[in-house]
Amino acid sequence: MRSFSNLTYGFAGLGLMGGSLAKAIRAKLLDSASARGKILAMDSNMAALASAMEKGVVDEVFEPEAAALMLKRCDIVFVCLYPAKTIDFLKEYRADFKSGAVVSDISGVKTGIMRSLPDILRGDVDFICGHPMAGSEKEGFYHSSEYIFEGRNYILMPHLSNKPENILFFKGLIGALGFSRITETDYELHDHKIAFTSQLCHVIASALVESAEDAEITAFGGGSFEDLTRIAMINAPLWTELFLANRAELLAHIDAFKVSLEKITDLIRDADGDGLCGVLEAVRVKRTAMSTIELTK
Amino acid sequence: MRSFSNLTYGFAGLGLMGGSLAKAIRAKLLDSASARGKILAMDSNMAALASAMEKGVVDEVFEPEAAALMLKRCDIVFVCLYPAKTIDFLKEYRADFKSGAVVSDISGVKTGIMRSLPDILRGDVDFICGHPMAGSEKEGFYHSSEYIFEGRNYILMPHLSNKPENILFFKGLIGALGFSRITETDYELHDHKIAFTSQLCHVIASALVESAEDAEITAFGGGSFEDLTRIAMINAPLWTELFLANRAELLAHIDAFKVSLEKITDLIRDADGDGLCGVLEAVRVKRTAMSTIELTK
Repeated sequence: MRSFSNLTYGFAGLGLMGGSLAKAIRAKLLDSASARGKILAMDSNMAALASAMEKGVVDEVFEPEAAALMLKRCDIVFVCLYPAKTIDFLKEYRADFKSGAVVSDISGVKTGIMRSLPDILRGDVDFICGHPMAGSEKEGFYHSSEYIFEGRNYILMPHLSNKPENILFFKGLIGALGFSRITETDYELHDHKIAFTSQLCHVIASALVESAEDAEITAFGGGSFEDLTRIAMINAPLWTELFLANRAELLAHIDAFKVSLEKITDLIRDADGDGLCGVLEAVRVKRTAMSTIELTK
Repeated sequence: MRSFSNLTYGFAGLGLMGGSLAKAIRAKLLDSASARGKILAMDSNMAALASAMEKGVVDEVFEPEAAALMLKRCDIVFVCLYPAKTIDFLKEYRADFKSGAVVSDISGVKTGIMRSLPDILRGDVDFICGHPMAGSEKEGFYHSSEYIFEGRNYILMPHLSNKPENILFFKGLIGALGFSRITETDYELHDHKIAFTSQLCHVIASALVESAEDAEITAFGGGSFEDLTRIAMINAPLWTELFLANRAELLAHIDAFKVSLEKITDLIRDADGDGLCGVLEAVRVKRTAMSTIELTK
């Protein structure tokens, strides 16, 4: 298997996620004196590229116009753009990837990209569809960090054309970056589940902040409101795109949530203490049974 | 002013909150060799009392039947029982408090207790109605900790009979325990605001867990679902009591939340990207403007 420390990594997009992955690769795979690997990065944000160079995170930077020049040198490419731009990028630069390269993306919605596979795949380039389940309510390279992946989930959606040795290689790579649980599934189940764990949560957090009477409410906060709404410091254009790209799944989960909310609301309205306590006890049991990784903040 | 280190503190109820307050008083006010203060505690849970003695958190323990014996010796009393029991306790032991004592509670709902004041107050005992905005999804003395108050809010609802010097004294006490922001308000506004920041959040978290398809969903979690539902590992009897004791306020906030949820849902259903992005951007601005204390987990 290829050694992680001697490969050339390329980033198309060096924002929060691209920046964090690049920093993790630098810190965990390329920090020894013998490492001959390199990190190349392309972004339209020149300040981000300059900062990444200055901090020694990347070795070379490229403007978007020079993307093809970068891609032809990279063994591993992470496309870390917004979902629609990811698809456009993979199509536009299909011919420019290095033969034998492993290419992956980080999109939060997968149906579009997987349906575009015929326009993306090349026999000698392996595209592995993936979703690192990490992030921050703060965006951009400035807020990127190599630590956000520790103990997190990574979802992979292998397809028939993927070479087994590349899937194995990629799993080793993301494990080395700190991810501790890799779930393999297909893109439809991914989009269905993610609409619940991620998109619905962002909708709820946003609605909760929207319904707040004023911004002074946190003088009465004890942590619950703060925890529920941290993700409402939302990257509006990105999440608009994610919500709409996964609209049907998200709407179905919103409906199911509303049914549960109504069930609890009815018990409160009816002052049905026994019924309410029974539902809350079942909720406690269900939530306690969920295996959650202890997340470092 | 009386010295915090030479007072006798009494706890009626030594669960998560009583235990945490007792530990904080022990660690922050009574840890010097010259401190002559004591901590007495009453609880129906003998194991909790034994543990508190063994760990040196309290100096003497009392069974519920001996509550009056404890109260007559205490300069400061924290009643840390469930809301309805708090009212019952304050009424039942009205005659047993030490003359000159300062008594406070920790109830999450205040209308009931404040309407019972005529049956609680005594001219020579000062009852200060308060709400420490801290806690944990884990209950009981075993999970108590002196650290949960750092940087937290404490809400005080002074009333006309409170002596200004006692309010000042009590503020100094809770500040010494780690609370960093004290908000003074009246009980009606407290119950209105808390129905939003606390009870509505617990309803939403519970409904979200209720609507989860299965307990394996967290394999697809990236932190959002985990953060939104940590409080759904809920103490069902306590929150049933809190929801029902503040029913009208809570139902009004649930209705407002549903309006906001519907507004966002409609924009998603209509695939109105511009409208959706505009609402999310406003949410981001509103949430970012909220001053939240950096909470230590």
